[in-house]
Amino acid sequence: MSEAKSPRSARWQLLRAEIEAREIEFLLVTHPPDVRWLCGFTGSNAALAVGARTAVLFTDGRYATQAREETEGARVVIAKKSALHDACRHLDMSGNQASFDPQHTSVADLAFMRSAISAKKRRGFFSSLKEPIVSALRMVKDSSETTLMEETAHLGCSLFEAILPRMESGITEMGVAAELEFFARGLGAEGMSFETIVASGRRSALPHGRATEAKLPRKGFVTLDFGVILNGYCSDMTRTVHLGGVTQEERSVYDAVLAAQEAAVEAVKPGATCGAVDEAARNVLRRAGLSKYFTHSTGHGVGLEIHEQPRIAAGQKTRLEPGMVITIEPGVYLPGKFGIRIEDMVAVTRTGGRVLTPVTKGWIEL
Amino acid sequence: MSEAKSPRSARWQLLRAEIEAREIEFLLVTHPPDVRWLCGFTGSNAALAVGARTAVLFTDGRYATQAREETEGARVVIAKKSALHDACRHLDMSGNQASFDPQHTSVADLAFMRSAISAKKRRGFFSSLKEPIVSALRMVKDSSETTLMEETAHLGCSLFEAILPRMESGITEMGVAAELEFFARGLGAEGMSFETIVASGRRSALPHGRATEAKLPRKGFVTLDFGVILNGYCSDMTRTVHLGGVTQEERSVYDAVLAAQEAAVEAVKPGATCGAVDEAARNVLRRAGLSKYFTHSTGHGVGLEIHEQPRIAAGQKTRLEPGMVITIEPGVYLPGKFGIRIEDMVAVTRTGGRVLTPVTKGWIEL
Repeated sequence: MSEAKSPRSARWQLLRAEIEAREIEFLLVTHPPDVRWLCGFTGSNAALAVGARTAVLFTDGRYATQAREETEGARVVIAKKSALHDACRHLDMSGNQASFDPQHTSVADLAFMRSAISAKKRRGFFSSLKEPIVSALRMVKDSSETTLMEETAHLGCSLFEAILPRMESGITEMGVAAELEFFARGLGAEGMSFETIVASGRRSALPHGRATEAKLPRKGFVTLDFGVILNGYCSDMTRTVHLGGVTQEERSVYDAVLAAQEAAVEAVKPGATCGAVDEAARNVLRRAGLSKYFTHSTGHGVGLEIHEQPRIAAGQKTRLEPGMVITIEPGVYLPGKFGIRIEDMVAVTRTGGRVLTPVTKGWIEL
Repeated sequence: MSEAKSPRSARWQLLRAEIEAREIEFLLVTHPPDVRWLCGFTGSNAALAVGARTAVLFTDGRYATQAREETEGARVVIAKKSALHDACRHLDMSGNQASFDPQHTSVADLAFMRSAISAKKRRGFFSSLKEPIVSALRMVKDSSETTLMEETAHLGCSLFEAILPRMESGITEMGVAAELEFFARGLGAEGMSFETIVASGRRSALPHGRATEAKLPRKGFVTLDFGVILNGYCSDMTRTVHLGGVTQEERSVYDAVLAAQEAAVEAVKPGATCGAVDEAARNVLRRAGLSKYFTHSTGHGVGLEIHEQPRIAAGQKTRLEPGMVITIEPGVYLPGKFGIRIEDMVAVTRTGGRVLTPVTKGWIEL
């Protein structure tokens, strides 16, 4: 990949190399973040037919102007019937085989795609990719993406710093979420990358506790898990802070989660398996007798989508590569008592991992 | 359906009647809004195996406490391997056939589901529903849902009224979105039902123009299309207002869009086809010579999801029934000049349609 080229022309090149290596005649790309990554079109409805030398983006009339402004590397066609139908008709007229991503194609869509191919060619026309292409390429961010994601992650950090002084006993979880999201918009975010989690007191023991009308307690933990979207890229971070006097148990569990999180961040380096990174966190919690309360995986890739490949989970054999951006977010949840989760975004570098969310994760007592 | 029963037990009854009528042994439900509608569980990962007399909800460890608190009508099992895998093992042990919704099952998931069934039973075990069951039932809202959706829609209306005095030349589109979303949270919204659209000046000609750093112009239109989530239900409404002096063309196009929107609202009644409602709007714009600038369909169902069945589009034969909630949102987009869209949520009643978003849609000059 030449440094002089625009990131998008480099992406097209990577894609075409894969298509050629796998002897695919046409690739049909329909998952919106895949389409966006490749050609820049940000609309919600598109079907991109990619051949060795051609690429045609089909979308609908709502996006006529926008598609022409945004798209690089593909010809834009406004579909007469539907984007997917017209893309399949184009494939039928242009070739004899097309591959699709089975993760992002529904059984109903596949039946519809087949019905759009002329009867005599239909059999065997579409093949399911054994291994994904675009989502695999998207795992490794190029330098322009890393720069954008760093900006997004820093915006997230500023929000945490801005919201801290507003968090006091009596304000509702929803109130905290409202202020955080207002700050986010004020700093230029296009939106939140997922529903903001503010889980306080006993509710902190719910790993996915949405913000409710519950008031922050006089004593106890508050877990804040939130992310913003900036330039289309998602951030994701979690901090758990404490209100009122701390008990010995609360403090020792916090220290264990922090040690587990730091051990997993330390384990991030090119060549390490995702399973080994997960195990680094799990092992610390096991030694503290807490691993059975760590009820989810350690993290996930992040980028144009909040959850991407790779999964940082037990047994995952995918090896980290420079350019990947992942979350490291172990947690411990004691049902009916409290929960703690600490999460950073980490970019894999040539030598290790670089934390993109460098705001303090030490003990914070409000 | 007995009025005395809880809405959820009535939903289970409707579902079981369908399962019996279609001679289905088991139905596998995995689409989160379908799961939520049936049993109340709001987590992001679930597989619900429904038989004639049994129902088991499989989810993962993150949701152990939450699933037990929320779920009605199904036994909760925390999956050892994955929710989908364990649900399929349960189906394998309990029966010989299961149906699934092809719209909400990916080709990859189906392959995974098949691989979880023992080899000798695998062939023919899973069948694709010819017609959807849960999403078809969800089209018709029960009275508890209509009440919730009315609340959600009214929250949307209050936001429009609150934001109007803040809209003036010089404030950015993002600034408008930020304030609107902050008000939403303040009024109890759980979040926005989609990325807020604020499209001003020439950008109003982009039907899906996200809020940008562009400042509201001294003269021109601003289209606001937004929705909130309250109690899990989505609202959706659009108003287009004008800043500065209006031209004759702007005013006459506005009047045409409004007439088209009102004609479509008038056309809403039980028994009318969705295509006829679309045609009512399109016909008004055709007579005004503007139909070629109306580049999308007239509306869609709305509920737990922002886009649901039915589609209000040309040729759609689905007939409206009391309890359906749809949007009516024609628009005209003159590329490079301006665009106008007006949208209400409308509940189908026994005799016609009731607008759930009764805030003014007459000409507003700021």
